[in-house]
Parts: sequence; C-alpha cells; structure tokens
Amino acid sequence: MSPFIAELIGTALVVILGDGVVANVILNKSKGQNGGWMVITMGWAMAVFVGVFVTGRFGGAHLNPAVSIALATAGKFEWALVPMYIAAQMLGAILGAVIVYLVYRDHFDATPDADTKLGVFCTAPAIRKKGNNLLTEIIGTFVLILGVLYIAAPGVGLGALEALPVAFLVLALGLSLGGPTGYAINPARDLGPRIAHFLLPIKGKRDSDWGYAWVPVIGPIVGALIATFVYMSMQ
Amino acid sequence: MSPFIAELIGTALVVILGDGVVANVILNKSKGQNGGWMVITMGWAMAVFVGVFVTGRFGGAHLNPAVSIALATAGKFEWALVPMYIAAQMLGAILGAVIVYLVYRDHFDATPDADTKLGVFCTAPAIRKKGNNLLTEIIGTFVLILGVLYIAAPGVGLGALEALPVAFLVLALGLSLGGPTGYAINPARDLGPRIAHFLLPIKGKRDSDWGYAWVPVIGPIVGALIATFVYMSMQ
Amino acid sequence: MSPFIAELIGTALVVILGDGVVANVILNKSKGQNGGWMVITMGWAMAVFVGVFVTGRFGGAHLNPAVSIALATAGKFEWALVPMYIAAQMLGAILGAVIVYLVYRDHFDATPDADTKLGVFCTAPAIRKKGNNLLTEIIGTFVLILGVLYIAAPGVGLGALEALPVAFLVLALGLSLGGPTGYAINPARDLGPRIAHFLLPIKGKRDSDWGYAWVPVIGPIVGALIATFVYMSMQ
Amino acid sequence: MSPFIAELIGTALVVILGDGVVANVILNKSKGQNGGWMVITMGWAMAVFVGVFVTGRFGGAHLNPAVSIALATAGKFEWALVPMYIAAQMLGAILGAVIVYLVYRDHFDATPDADTKLGVFCTAPAIRKKGNNLLTEIIGTFVLILGVLYIAAPGVGLGALEALPVAFLVLALGLSLGGPTGYAINPARDLGPRIAHFLLPIKGKRDSDWGYAWVPVIGPIVGALIATFVYMSMQ
Repeated sequence: MSPFIAELIGTALVVILGDGVVANVILNKSKGQNGGWMVITMGWAMAVFVGVFVTGRFGGAHLNPAVSIALATAGKFEWALVPMYIAAQMLGAILGAVIVYLVYRDHFDATPDADTKLGVFCTAPAIRKKGNNLLTEIIGTFVLILGVLYIAAPGVGLGALEALPVAFLVLALGLSLGGPTGYAINPARDLGPRIAHFLLPIKGKRDSDWGYAWVPVIGPIVGALIATFVYMSMQ
Repeated sequence: MSPFIAELIGTALVVILGDGVVANVILNKSKGQNGGWMVITMGWAMAVFVGVFVTGRFGGAHLNPAVSIALATAGKFEWALVPMYIAAQMLGAILGAVIVYLVYRDHFDATPDADTKLGVFCTAPAIRKKGNNLLTEIIGTFVLILGVLYIAAPGVGLGALEALPVAFLVLALGLSLGGPTGYAINPARDLGPRIAHFLLPIKGKRDSDWGYAWVPVIGPIVGALIATFVYMSMQ
Repeated sequence: MSPFIAELIGTALVVILGDGVVANVILNKSKGQNGGWMVITMGWAMAVFVGVFVTGRFGGAHLNPAVSIALATAGKFEWALVPMYIAAQMLGAILGAVIVYLVYRDHFDATPDADTKLGVFCTAPAIRKKGNNLLTEIIGTFVLILGVLYIAAPGVGLGALEALPVAFLVLALGLSLGGPTGYAINPARDLGPRIAHFLLPIKGKRDSDWGYAWVPVIGPIVGALIATFVYMSMQ
Repeated sequence: MSPFIAELIGTALVVILGDGVVANVILNKSKGQNGGWMVITMGWAMAVFVGVFVTGRFGGAHLNPAVSIALATAGKFEWALVPMYIAAQMLGAILGAVIVYLVYRDHFDATPDADTKLGVFCTAPAIRKKGNNLLTEIIGTFVLILGVLYIAAPGVGLGALEALPVAFLVLALGLSLGGPTGYAINPARDLGPRIAHFLLPIKGKRDSDWGYAWVPVIGPIVGALIATFVYMSMQ
C-alpha cells in the first residue's frame, strides 16, 4: 500500500465510521437514534482506532491535514509530501461520506429536517459566533496535536494496539471540548464530507453551509501550528 | 482443544454474550432494559473479545464464516478446512442462542411482542428494503474484513489483550454502521440463532422471518470477498 | 502483603467500587442517579480491574470463592489454602460494604425504599423464580470461570494492564447475562455485603432477604465446577 | 520539558479535559448536554490519560498535590520538590479552567443558573454535610493513592499506554465513589478552578463557595496520607 493509498483509505475509514455514527444517532428510524454523546464520541474514537491501525504502517496514518502540517513544521515529515497527503485525505474523506450515504440512504429519506441531513456530513456550531467557534476549534486542535506530538512509542511493537492512544485522545477531545462546535479538529474530516453533501443527490437537502466552512479548516490549522511551536520551544 | 471445538465454543461464547446483551436490553423486566445502543454495541464487542481470547490459540478464532472464507481466499487458511469451520460456527451459534434462551426464559415469557422475541436471536432491518439492507451488510462486512486482514501482530505475545483490536473493530462497526440492519456481519451469528428460534419452544413466538434470512448470509460473504480482493490487489 | 491480606484488600476494593457504583446509580440525590446499565457494568468491571492490579502479584487475585474452588479443582491452587482465601474474601467483602455505607450514608437516609437500600449490598432477581435464577447464576459463572481459565499470559510483563482481560470479561458478563439476577457470579460479593446489611444500623432497612441468599452462593460454585470440568476434559 | 513545566501542562490538560466534560454536560445548548454520568466519568478518565501520557516522562505526572505528598511520604519523591510541584499543579489547574471558560464562553452566557456555572469549575456536594463530605473525599482519595502506589510497571516500555491504568483507576473512582461529592480527590483540581471562577469575568456568577473549599483540599490530603501509611506498613 503506497502512502497515498494508505492516507486515502485511512481517512475514508475514519469518515465512514465517524460520519456513520452521527448518521446512526441523528437520522430517523436508525437503531442507534438518540444514542447520545457517549455513542458519538466513542464512535469517532473507534473510527480513528480503525483508520490508524489499518494504515499506520504504510503512511504514518496522519489522516488529517493538521497533523501533516504539524509534523512537517516540526521537521518530522517532508514538506514536499504534504500536498499529496492532503489530497489523499480530502479524497478519502469525500469517499467515506459517499459510503455513509449509501449505508444510510433510506434513513436520509426518512428524515425530513435538512439541517439534520447536513449534520451527518460536517460540523455546525451549537451557538453560531464564528470568532468563538474558531477559538474553540483552535484550542481543540491544539490539544490534539500537542498530544500527538508527545505520544511515546512503546519499547516493543504492540501491533494494532499502538493505535489506541490517539483514539483515546480523540475520545477525550470529543467528550470534553466537542460541546460548542462538534470538534472538527481536522479540515479534511469537515470539508471533504461537506463537498460530498454538495455533490450527492440527497432528497430535500439544504445548502452546504459554505459560510461556516472555513472555520473548521482554518481553526485546526492554526491550532496545529501553535501546538507545534509550543512543542518545538520545549525541545 | 481441537480447532473444531475451539470454533464451536468461541462462536457459542460470542452468541451467548452478544444475543445476551440484546435480550438484556429489549426484553421486559430485565435489569438492563432500555440500556441503549452503547450497551448493545459494547456487549457485542466484549462478546467478541471473550470468544477470541478463549479460543484464539486453538483455532485462530474466526468465529465467522465470512472470516474463514476471506482468509481462505487470501491464501492464509486452507480451503479444505472451511466447511468444518463453518459447521462448527453454525453449531456454536445455535448452542449459544439456546443458552441465552435458558438464561432469559422468564423474560421471554414476560415480553408479549413476538418481534421483540425474535429480535433477541437474529437481525432485522430498521427499514425493510432488501437491496439497501444487503448493501449495508456488504459494506459493514467489507470494513470488518479489511480491518481483520490488516490487524498487525505485536512484536511480543500480549496474551488475552491480543483479542482487543478485533473487539474494538466490532465496536466501531456497531456504533457506526449498525443503524440500518443491526450489523449481522457474520452469517453464523444470524442464521444459527434464527434456527434456534425456529426450534425452541418459545411461548407466543412468530415465524423466524425466513424471507430476510438470506440477506445477513449473502451480504457478509460478498463484503468479505470484496475486502479480500482489495487486500490482495494491494499486496 | 501476605496472600490473606491481598485477598482481603482486593475483595474489599472490588466491593467498595462495585457496590459503590450501585449506590451511585440507585440511591436518591446521588450525582450518578439513573446513570443506567452502562455505568453499573463499567463500574463493576473497573472495580475488578483495580482489585486485581493492586493485589494480583501478592495472592493471585482470586477475589471470589468460585475462582479459588475452580483453580483448586483444576490442580492450579492448593486445596489447603482455599478456606483461608474464602475467609479473606468474605471479610474483605463485608469490609467493602461497610465502607460503601460510610461513603453514601446521607444518600441511604435520603432513600426511603427499603428494597433499594438492600439492592446496594446484594443481588436480587428481576423475576423471582429460584430455579431459573439459580440456572442464570450457574451459566454466568460458568462463562466467567471458563474465561478465567483460558486467559493467556503475555510473553512479557505488562504491569497493571494484565488485569484488563478479566475486567473486560466481567464487563461482558454484566452487559449480557446480568439482566435476570444482577450477576452475583461470586459468593463473597453477594453474601459478604448481605451480612453487612444485616449488621449495619441502616435507618428504615428491611430484612436481608435470607431466603434468596443461597442462590448467589450455590449457583456460582456449581457454575465454576462445571466450567472446571469442561476445561479439564479438554486438556 | 522541565518537571515544573510538565506538571503545569499536565495538570492544565487534566482540567481542560475534565472541567471541559462537565461544561459539555451541564451548560445549556452544548452538544453533550445531559450526556450523563458515563460521559462525565469517561471524560475525566481520558483527561487523566492525556495529561499523564503527555507529561509522564518529564516529571512523573503527579498532577495532584495528594500524589506528590503521598510519594514524598513514602520516600519515593523528594520533599524539597513538593512545593514546586504543588505550585505548578495549582497554576496548571487555574490555566486549564481559564481555557475551559474560553471554549465554552457562549454556553456560560446561555446558562442562567449560577450554581451550574460554578459546577463547571469545582465540586459541590450533593447533600451538604461537611463531615460526611470530608469522609467521602478521604475514602475516595485513599483508594486513588493506594491504587497509584500499587500500579506495577510493565517489563517493557508500553509507551503512552502506560498511562491507561491510572486513567481507569480514576474512571472507577468516578463511577463508584463520585456520587456524594463529585470526587475532587485532588486539591489542585478543585481549588485551582475555584480561584479561576473567582477571577474570571463570568456574567451572572455567584460567589465561589469558599465555605466548602477546604473539604476537597483537606480530604484528599488526609486520604493520601492514610493510604501511604497503610502501604508503608505492608512493605
């Protein structure tokens, strides 16, 4: 598996299982409907676990442009590879969202509310104030990237279990900092599915809320850069 | 423990603990009634954990005909053993369902709704459209088998904890893709208990919904084959 | 720490944290009131995790007479030590229940229902039919002991994490087979706190339901013996 | 990273993610509102996991004055470093609470109840009886410190996963003993955010409940000392 394919498949898995859990909890007639915040945050955590353990050995499992940019800034990843990684992450995220639509198609049809349909794909703030929403995404991604940069490698290969710390880190972020904006903390995770929402023939869909789309792109990048500078200043 | 016995006991444990958690959540007067989707998906995940760690060293812990077929297709398991494995898995699943009935007998009697009684044993779609339901089972099992094929072994034996990645993979699938069909993703897990439902003297039971029975058998096999071909194409 | 002290402290920790989570969920005005089945089963699982990792290296962390009897029957533990272990487990369970009472005293006073007060200490069946209740405890403990006997040791010491498999096994049992009787699966865990309930000066308490007390003692012992014989027959 | 900075950042991470999950569950319009006790306790557990794995190799990750005092009493840590560690923990806890306020500012404004606002920062008893509340904090911290002192190190470095046992220990404590007082079990975790609440310009805030503030400071220290003496008496 090439790094490009690994990033594409890994991000697709994260979005299939991540947007999938949102679909399960918010769409009508789904068996997990109203499953609550524990279901959503554990679903995203396990989505990251699966995406990382399947693809980690092939491309490092960034699965998030903010991670690629942070690692390149910290000198742990080649800048020349960043555009290719981000392209793979975006394509994977779009593909993942299409697959979620295929799995939950009947449930999209059974859900009249257009905001709910959009909410399966991308984040929206609980209280729309873009400045504060941006700050929340910056802080959330700051914690994510600081954690990623300080995850210690084990002294012996632990196999798939090596993907557990980052999954629990994402669980922590969702449980604790996900309340105001739904914790995008990953530009590809938000923008990719938003593009899929725009392209897919979803019955009764609304616009894709492009006015908010920059917040979960810029916020995570800024947060990642701040975390990286803090990390580098302490080396 | 011979591989046949290991597969039989392992699959029985998965169904005892898996169908058991469904019984706990949906049958009347049970202490876990209305426990919600987190309880059901964590119950199935831990069921897989127990089934795999008890039997993994004796037979590989396929515990699912889709896994046996996938591994044989990928050249990692002998085709000649597949029929024996599937027979053991089916017998184990039937046995497991009988044990769940014994544990929850009074609660079956306290639950008048015949659909609920059947729901303890086998899956039923939230919205019955067999084409889409089949697609959902194909995609869910595709992710399961892709994950199984890419679980990396640790560099040193981790004992029972080696069963954790596949358990969390099943947790991810239930949380995220289980909404439309209840995630059979295993022909034995669905057909075995359905046969048990047919055979057991359950008061006030309905028919065993044989018209749907092929979906959670064919879907997982097709999904497993697609995942295996994708996996092989990337070697 | 002597094995006697280890078993006493370990069982006390299990009961403090296990009966503690029940108190938290069912007593009035507690912050975890109505937390649900996930809270209860995760609380018991983590109780076992803590009890085992604190005391495992000193006495093997049986923390359950059914485990001591099973291991002695299987030839993995000296019969001569069984009475001392069971005495330590019973004393630890009584002590643990007293500590739960001290922690939740105001909440016992705020809870008028006498059955609820008793329910913090020991199990009671959802539907009282002693034959079926006994069968449920036998099957639950059968699965517990079969699992315990087949937990594989890691190839290298994993420290406290070695206590995780048995904790997740107990999580599985609670989620799946706990519905009818509240899964005692441990004579000390049930009888010890029942004795504490009898002795403690709890305002407005009922009798300690001695008519049921033998079920969660005999059931676990029978289930443990059957599991051990199955295990030995497969060696 | 110096030990001082490590303790400061680690404690800040614990409070960001710990007070963060409380904000998410109790403030109005938050996506995790009414998420329940499982969300709160898992959030605190994962907060500890992140704080410990990020900073553990630099300063030991006490992140709690009760831990520093216990380790110094047990002869495992230099008394001369204790004041610096506690100062770092207090500063980190104040900083963490300020960040939670920044993340959830709009939700504080959307929540009229002043007790709820305060509840994000520090603990308050469910039933206010300071003697019993103190006893609950003593017992909770006793179990925490006993557990911490007996966590066995693995035979090989497990990387970030080495932070999991203490996280699950905190999960156990929250699930089981958190009902009466909200389990401060850490003077810095309670007093630091209380000071932040006092200093921050929160609209419509109440006083910082200074009359209760000594309970979650003295209780944890007393519980830690008792646990340490029990530990030392068994060496």
